[in-house]
Amino acid sequence: MNQDFMQAAIKLSREKSWQGDGGPFGAVIVKDGKIIARGWNQVLRKNDPTCHAEMVAIRAASRKLKDYRLTGCAIYASCEPCPMCLSALYWAGVEHIYFAATRKDAAKLGFADDFLYQELQCEPEKRTLPIEQMMRPEAVEVFNQWEKLENKVIY
Amino acid sequence: MNQDFMQAAIKLSREKSWQGDGGPFGAVIVKDGKIIARGWNQVLRKNDPTCHAEMVAIRAASRKLKDYRLTGCAIYASCEPCPMCLSALYWAGVEHIYFAATRKDAAKLGFADDFLYQELQCEPEKRTLPIEQMMRPEAVEVFNQWEKLENKVIY
Repeated sequence: MNQDFMQAAIKLSREKSWQGDGGPFGAVIVKDGKIIARGWNQVLRKNDPTCHAEMVAIRAASRKLKDYRLTGCAIYASCEPCPMCLSALYWAGVEHIYFAATRKDAAKLGFADDFLYQELQCEPEKRTLPIEQMMRPEAVEVFNQWEKLENKVIY
Repeated sequence: MNQDFMQAAIKLSREKSWQGDGGPFGAVIVKDGKIIARGWNQVLRKNDPTCHAEMVAIRAASRKLKDYRLTGCAIYASCEPCPMCLSALYWAGVEHIYFAATRKDAAKLGFADDFLYQELQCEPEKRTLPIEQMMRPEAVEVFNQWEKLENKVIY
C-alpha cells in the first residue's frame, strides 16, 4: 500500500518534469488509505518559486478538506522535503512523511536543498542572505494589541 | 525610506489580522525603491497553512515580474520569517531581509516559529514529525534520466 503511494509520487516526478513544469519532484497526500491530493513541481510552469511538489499537494489537500490542518494525513514525496516544504508540513499538521531520494541526490542535479539545510543551521549573521532587524517596538506593539483580541485564532 | 517600507508591513500586520484573515504578520517586497508586492497572513481566510505574509508577498511579486527569481528585491517583514518563509526567500533569490519582531516574540503569542527552527536543527530521527525513507532507487532512476534531458532547467 505504502509502495503504491510512493509509486504514484515518483510517477508524477517523471511525467510532469518531462513536460517542462519544473524539477523532477512529485508528492501525494494520503488520508484514510486514499490519495486525497497530488502535487508536482511547477516552479517553471507557474513562474512561482514556492510551487514545490509538497507545497502544491498541501494546498490542494487543504482546499479539499476545507481545513488548514491536515490532521490524519501522511505525505509521500519522491524526494526528501526541502526546509520550506518540511516546515509547511509542520504548519499543516501532517502526521507522517515518507520520502525516496535524498537532499544529497537532489544536490547532485544542482538543486539547493542540501545547501538550504546548511544555511538554516547557521547563525543569521553567517548566512549568505543578509538579514537585519529594525523597528521591533512598533511590531511588538501590534502583537500586544492582537493578544487582547477575544476572537483571535492561533494555528 | 527603509522605515516607510517597514511601516507598510506593520500596518498590514495590524489591519488584516484585525479583520480575521490570520495571524498579525505583514510583509512588502521592494524593488528599485518601490513596493511591488504586499502580503499578509491569510491562513484562516484561505484555509491554507502556506499563506504566511512572506509567502503571499513572494507569490504576488513573482506574478508581477513574471519571474520565479526576485532578483534585486528586498523584503520587509513585520516578524522574523519562519523557516518555511526564510527558505522560500532563498529559493526566490530575494537579496535582503529586514524584519521587526522576532521568532521569540511570535512564540509568546503561541506561534510555532521558534519551535520550528529548533526542529529543523535536529537530526531527522529526533524530530517530533516522523520521517521515513523508502524506494530511493526508483526515484534516483528518474533523477538520472532527467539529468540527460537537453532542455532541463535548474533553478
